[in-house]
Amino acid sequence: MKAYSAMSKEELAKEYEKEKAAFEALKGLGLKLNMARGKPERGQLDITTDMLTVIKTPEDCMDPIDGNDARQYGTPWGLTCCRELWAEILGCKAENVLAAGSSSLTLMYDTVSKAVTHGLLHSDKPWKDLPKVKWLCPAPGYDRHFRICASFGFEMIYVPMNENGPDMDVVEDLIKDEAVKGMWCVPKYSNPTGCIYSAETIARIAKMKPAAKDFLLMWDNAYCVHEFEGDYVPFPDILSLAAENGNADMVMEYASTSKITLPGAGIACMAGSVDNMKYLMDLWDVQSISFDKMNQIRHVRYLKNKAGVLELMKKHAAILKPKFDAVLDALDKEIAPLEFASWNRPVGGYFVSLNVMEGTAKRTLALCKEAGVVMTAAGATFPYGNDPHDSNVRVAPTLPPVAELEDAIKVLCVCMKLSALEKLLGK
Amino acid sequence: MKAYSAMSKEELAKEYEKEKAAFEALKGLGLKLNMARGKPERGQLDITTDMLTVIKTPEDCMDPIDGNDARQYGTPWGLTCCRELWAEILGCKAENVLAAGSSSLTLMYDTVSKAVTHGLLHSDKPWKDLPKVKWLCPAPGYDRHFRICASFGFEMIYVPMNENGPDMDVVEDLIKDEAVKGMWCVPKYSNPTGCIYSAETIARIAKMKPAAKDFLLMWDNAYCVHEFEGDYVPFPDILSLAAENGNADMVMEYASTSKITLPGAGIACMAGSVDNMKYLMDLWDVQSISFDKMNQIRHVRYLKNKAGVLELMKKHAAILKPKFDAVLDALDKEIAPLEFASWNRPVGGYFVSLNVMEGTAKRTLALCKEAGVVMTAAGATFPYGNDPHDSNVRVAPTLPPVAELEDAIKVLCVCMKLSALEKLLGK
Repeated sequence: MKAYSAMSKEELAKEYEKEKAAFEALKGLGLKLNMARGKPERGQLDITTDMLTVIKTPEDCMDPIDGNDARQYGTPWGLTCCRELWAEILGCKAENVLAAGSSSLTLMYDTVSKAVTHGLLHSDKPWKDLPKVKWLCPAPGYDRHFRICASFGFEMIYVPMNENGPDMDVVEDLIKDEAVKGMWCVPKYSNPTGCIYSAETIARIAKMKPAAKDFLLMWDNAYCVHEFEGDYVPFPDILSLAAENGNADMVMEYASTSKITLPGAGIACMAGSVDNMKYLMDLWDVQSISFDKMNQIRHVRYLKNKAGVLELMKKHAAILKPKFDAVLDALDKEIAPLEFASWNRPVGGYFVSLNVMEGTAKRTLALCKEAGVVMTAAGATFPYGNDPHDSNVRVAPTLPPVAELEDAIKVLCVCMKLSALEKLLGK
Repeated sequence: MKAYSAMSKEELAKEYEKEKAAFEALKGLGLKLNMARGKPERGQLDITTDMLTVIKTPEDCMDPIDGNDARQYGTPWGLTCCRELWAEILGCKAENVLAAGSSSLTLMYDTVSKAVTHGLLHSDKPWKDLPKVKWLCPAPGYDRHFRICASFGFEMIYVPMNENGPDMDVVEDLIKDEAVKGMWCVPKYSNPTGCIYSAETIARIAKMKPAAKDFLLMWDNAYCVHEFEGDYVPFPDILSLAAENGNADMVMEYASTSKITLPGAGIACMAGSVDNMKYLMDLWDVQSISFDKMNQIRHVRYLKNKAGVLELMKKHAAILKPKFDAVLDALDKEIAPLEFASWNRPVGGYFVSLNVMEGTAKRTLALCKEAGVVMTAAGATFPYGNDPHDSNVRVAPTLPPVAELEDAIKVLCVCMKLSALEKLLGK
């Protein structure tokens, strides 16, 4: 095998015929496979079966720290024991934490929604009364973040992601514009590139001086303990870093146990400076009497502490690692020698971010679909669904069993090659 | 005992001295009692202890109707079995129902918030772009409803409540104003008056013709199965009544099991026309991947169906009835002969709505507080916290044990009398 770029037209044509035949053969199998979303597989859901019965009696429902009854109204900030657990995981203080319902996405949406309708702590007015709100979207990124911006009519500005996080030269330039009101960040095992923001990048983020005094740094720590290979990787507490740089009220952090315990039925949290939290909780108090504290106490009694969480993550890792290996092995074997594509090698998170030949991502995924393999839509990882290079493909290998995954990745490899060859041959 | 109005000045002065002495004696007891919020007592929380362990295995987590796994992402409308349960309780169809998280208040807030930021199905523009939004607030009503309006800067318009529901002559006149965009309703055991809207009132509501084509009738069916005395009282399905009158998209209905299973940890739902639900769920899809379906399956397997719910409500009734009796007995004995106050005699819900002598509600509650009894703030049941007659007092007798409640109501009776006598004597 040699690189496509080193092949003659004739060699490429021969390759094309070979891959075309392979594609037709795969199509004939009538596959029906899905690598679209970052869902855990059934085996991962079974890991936490013991959690279902950990709360048995009324006594089990009492907060072990302050005795509050998880079954009663009130305690709007969440159970103390649950706030403590999140503080230990995130490395912040319990006073910074709201222990909430099951969805961190909902908390993020609600924060942005309140900025629009009411304004943030340092806003002169609600954002709804501004002529324009702009938002920084490092990409490839999480499509659901971008959808929140789109839903509120924010102008999304593309910021390139590199292996250390967002391109901070670009960010530092853009935030000179007062209309730029915020930025999405997934600092650890970023969705989908899998990178961990470097210490230098995080330091530059923490000391940003945006023109907008109510700039909102959305720190979505979705994969904070989600190693599937190697040991737990510590991360800095963005809240104290920001505070040390006079930016205490700039950051809001989010996390959930959706990929620790159960998707959509875990516990979520939001953390910010004491002043920020007080301001936001006054607004939240209109929306909510209390979050589901029963699910909080169930989680705390089951997970116990950060060590308990990390132990659990090892069980997830045992299921996830072979799947990521299957994807990477296939890419290494089938694609690497041809030198027309690149991808990351994550050790945590839920995705492999693949860059196929420029201008062929849409075509690649259309071919996959034809052969019965559904992938995340091309462009979904960019604001407005528009990948400027039509190159990024998000591979979500976690849901299918390994055997199905191997079939799916085989199809993906053939489709990548076929669409690259089509382009090279001007077909 | 005779009516205050039939007493001479001298007799009133004598009464005053007597009640003043009684008040001082009670104050000396150093009581610390609370009748402020509609919280269930501990015994009610214990009723559902069996629910805690009803889900034991992965198989228990599968929707008995369509096999969907409650532990996985997705199913944004909620489990089919849970939508069916709510449809049976509310008398609508499952296709009308979103089975959601634990709080109906949050669903109500979110609906209003989306009207502000995005507009409703029939809105020309989001309400944030209107010069003014007005809202009908039948009162006495639920303080948290009014707080939502206040938070979004709506102009609240007071509508008198009578024993059949809101005064519909007033309502029908007010909705001629296009700026009037909605109305709060608690149709069964209204908070706090305890009335059930009459069939005629509901018929008039269902056929309203508001000038605003995006008028939002908020039907908070918070106490739909909450009889504590006598048999279950059926109620009409507002969704089909509105549809029959060409108002299908005017109504959104809400309910939760906070006072059926566990406060703040129950299951909540929202119901509307199919078109309304589709429109709103497209907006909700930005905010939420899925609600906590584990709590849904736990509830469905425990409650089973409407009959199961009604059976459970009998157990709550056995705890609640003696408490309401204690309040009503004291009022009948201590206050009725004096003929200066009136109150309802609810057979369901969580409150007794008491009208003390006009102009003395604030004073009555200040005296109560002095004697160690905390009540819902005077005026809280009116928009802007402003009771035009300074007369309404919301009594929430559910939380304290009967013995404490008897003490508290004794204090309330003395304080009512004392403040009435102060007024009559010009003190």
